[in-house]
Amino acid sequence: MVRLRVRQLDLEAGGKFIVVLNRDDAEELGVSGLSRVKVSKDSKDVIAIVNLATESIPRGHIGVYNEVKSYLGLRDLEEVNVEAISFPTSVYHIRSKLSGKRLTYEEIYEVVKDVVSGRLSEVEIAAFIVALHAFGLDLDEAASLSLAMVETGSKLELKKPLIVDKHSIGGVPGDKTTLLVVPIIAASGLTIPKSSSRAITSAAGTADRAETLMPVNLRLSEVREVVEKTNGCIVWGGALDLAPADDIFIRVENPLSIDPLLLPSIMSKKKAVGANLLVIDIPTGRGTKVKTIGEADMLAKDFIELGRRLGIEVRCAVTYGEQPVGYTVGPALEAWEALNTLMGKSRPYDLIDKAAHIAGILLEMSGKARGGNGREIALKILESGKAEEKLREIIGAQGGNTKITPEDIPLGHERYTVYSKRRGVILWIDNSIVVEAARLAGAPRDKGAGILLHKKIGDKVSEGEPLATIYAERASRLEKPAKILEETLAIGVGDRMEMLIHEIKGRPVTKKTFVLER
Amino acid sequence: MVRLRVRQLDLEAGGKFIVVLNRDDAEELGVSGLSRVKVSKDSKDVIAIVNLATESIPRGHIGVYNEVKSYLGLRDLEEVNVEAISFPTSVYHIRSKLSGKRLTYEEIYEVVKDVVSGRLSEVEIAAFIVALHAFGLDLDEAASLSLAMVETGSKLELKKPLIVDKHSIGGVPGDKTTLLVVPIIAASGLTIPKSSSRAITSAAGTADRAETLMPVNLRLSEVREVVEKTNGCIVWGGALDLAPADDIFIRVENPLSIDPLLLPSIMSKKKAVGANLLVIDIPTGRGTKVKTIGEADMLAKDFIELGRRLGIEVRCAVTYGEQPVGYTVGPALEAWEALNTLMGKSRPYDLIDKAAHIAGILLEMSGKARGGNGREIALKILESGKAEEKLREIIGAQGGNTKITPEDIPLGHERYTVYSKRRGVILWIDNSIVVEAARLAGAPRDKGAGILLHKKIGDKVSEGEPLATIYAERASRLEKPAKILEETLAIGVGDRMEMLIHEIKGRPVTKKTFVLER
Repeated sequence: MVRLRVRQLDLEAGGKFIVVLNRDDAEELGVSGLSRVKVSKDSKDVIAIVNLATESIPRGHIGVYNEVKSYLGLRDLEEVNVEAISFPTSVYHIRSKLSGKRLTYEEIYEVVKDVVSGRLSEVEIAAFIVALHAFGLDLDEAASLSLAMVETGSKLELKKPLIVDKHSIGGVPGDKTTLLVVPIIAASGLTIPKSSSRAITSAAGTADRAETLMPVNLRLSEVREVVEKTNGCIVWGGALDLAPADDIFIRVENPLSIDPLLLPSIMSKKKAVGANLLVIDIPTGRGTKVKTIGEADMLAKDFIELGRRLGIEVRCAVTYGEQPVGYTVGPALEAWEALNTLMGKSRPYDLIDKAAHIAGILLEMSGKARGGNGREIALKILESGKAEEKLREIIGAQGGNTKITPEDIPLGHERYTVYSKRRGVILWIDNSIVVEAARLAGAPRDKGAGILLHKKIGDKVSEGEPLATIYAERASRLEKPAKILEETLAIGVGDRMEMLIHEIKGRPVTKKTFVLER
Repeated sequence: MVRLRVRQLDLEAGGKFIVVLNRDDAEELGVSGLSRVKVSKDSKDVIAIVNLATESIPRGHIGVYNEVKSYLGLRDLEEVNVEAISFPTSVYHIRSKLSGKRLTYEEIYEVVKDVVSGRLSEVEIAAFIVALHAFGLDLDEAASLSLAMVETGSKLELKKPLIVDKHSIGGVPGDKTTLLVVPIIAASGLTIPKSSSRAITSAAGTADRAETLMPVNLRLSEVREVVEKTNGCIVWGGALDLAPADDIFIRVENPLSIDPLLLPSIMSKKKAVGANLLVIDIPTGRGTKVKTIGEADMLAKDFIELGRRLGIEVRCAVTYGEQPVGYTVGPALEAWEALNTLMGKSRPYDLIDKAAHIAGILLEMSGKARGGNGREIALKILESGKAEEKLREIIGAQGGNTKITPEDIPLGHERYTVYSKRRGVILWIDNSIVVEAARLAGAPRDKGAGILLHKKIGDKVSEGEPLATIYAERASRLEKPAKILEETLAIGVGDRMEMLIHEIKGRPVTKKTFVLER
């Protein structure tokens, strides 16, 4: 170990921890370029990748990238301890998995711990993920991974005997169900500490939607206060340090479009907030992630069994996902629709039906509803205005404006409407094209961007009637989504289904366009 | 595209290409930290990872790490072109392989091209390698990979109709066979442009051994000259840019201890030097990489079939590998033994037998020997002194001292001898412990370090007779290897084999200790 003096470098590496050592100091420590060292100050430490310098960093000094500086709270010229780290034995466990072996809890825990501490390289993490994808992981391994991810992160510790939660694996656009379910459940007296993700490949994540109504970027201690006060919350999970290994795994999985950790990922976050009862929503059908009811049932079985091993009672809701939920897609538009619905100003049938079913299952699981009338109780809470009242309480507790109206939510001012070229019935709405159009319009980054549908499947339409309106914050963002909505068969109008689905001329190019949400 | 002025940073990243952009320039280019950009000067370009700075790199400038500076030959303040690169479509092919699909030549070529140009991230390259490992690659894919690796690198173009080569997959210590085979074959009139690797997990690679006799770090044009003059060469392949993708793949494979590209890797290097006839040596048996003759035969079949697809006639030599070849392990010791053998000053039976067999197969394949007398012709060339003469010619052409004697080769001056504690017969010599001891003594970095064996399997030994001598360049490097040779059963002496191999008390820890050589 050596003590070195900090030199700030004003350099940033997209979140990676990098330090620069003088070549001679590095040799003395026995490290080379791309080795890793542990840098510590007081009781905090970080594992950083080593770069080398000959003159710009003199002996006895250590250049630090901004990420290291902020994480350790370093000032120029203060001293830190720097030591070489030993070869991580978890690499042997990764090699075991690469030869197709099952891993024990102890082995998985060691891998996850080294992922979180930064001891493993990106190559090693990628190898672990791909090995899990290729060789599969059984339910024991999935349970071990879930627990290891919980143990290596923070936990939300609430003084409540019963904690419920819901999660959707995503894949259906416009799904603002959580914005209704959380206030309904919290209003019923149950505790629901809901943390959500932001959009990765979709047009809006629940955190993006909620952020147009209230702050969602809370610290864990603030989340605890909000939930203890209101029974619920709708916050972004990214900053809470719940199962932080998962966030690292996701950064590797997304570019590869593989998702072997789906179940452990979801379940670890639920375990970390202390959930006892959980409903998993599995949107199913053409245009979603899970194409058939058979597949959905298999996935549900795994969720239920994994829950059993983790001490979480799970039920799954296999839901219809062949068109967007409600009429809006995009962060602000969806929050606007949800608020209108909670206030009784609009009644999108499918959104209300889905929220009432999911809230109803939680009410039945908890014993708040008996004899199968959970859905009715949920609807009653919604219609009575108690859910709206509860949402406003949560908004207030999270630091937002409790008096917010739908008109306060800023929707994109640049708009373009697509009209039907013929009369008939809406036969289909292509989820992936709707999402692509919303993203081309600026969602999720431009919160006011998105798509408002005027019709849903089964609705009658006349020639020249509006089908959909594109919302954007910048005029330059209208052309591309307008083109794809006009030129593709995003919204199919006809008298009846036609028989030819698709003609293949050359080598077909297929892309997987989404990742399952966690 | 923007033009930016170069600022040298005096920073090094272990071989990675990194540049630092001002945050505003980066935004203008539409890139963020960890994105990649193409930096070009005149007709050369490089793909580099982007780091960001706020003030230390002003707008209009680009900070360059040493690797980028040297590769492009940059000077301070000169201008370079910088542009964002598009999403590499080869990622879709990697995703195909991740879902278990077979890849076409065009798809594999695109992946390999993007690997060489630096367009793919380490995560993507690791995913490709692990997918090949987990899902396997068939012979069509192996042939495609071999050709794609040849096409994306340099080729040695010799004006010779027949080019022969040999390769060992390694795993047996002390294997200095190449140092005999190359001069025998070149002396016979055949052309053998031998490029070799350095040790990764072994105590010496052929390039390390040869380097104690002559320079081996030649450029491709110099290799051509040497071979055209002498019919042979023994050079390090690492700087020749033959199949450069392979060197990148190896950097990923080694830490993971997987080796899915073994066959394409070897065959691409042989194709790149234009080989028509090839012998692959597969050392087999306990303590080597290939444990059984059945396994060796399966591997041989794949080599032969892959060769057929690439236009290379392949024969395989399955050789005995249960103890070191000859009496020495370590770069200088092995070169010393080989030179002594070529000069007729010592006659290690197994080394001579192996070299004569392998050279003999090449002589028979080429038609230089007929009716199965290849081995005898090879022995005659060795015994006549023509092979020694040829080696000296090659040494001279590569820039070494043609008059070199074994005494000129510097062996470690620090020595420690291990003696037999009982009388009996040598029952086994544990390859992996011998390698570990040689490495602990300093090999391959300290060229004079290694192990000299005094006895081989089957030799009689009296109590107190020397078994092995450790050579080191530094006295501090003797203790550890002495300890393991004294305390383990590295060299087994007894009257007969004993029945208990190994007792397992707790959870056994198994490590794969080597990678196959290429």
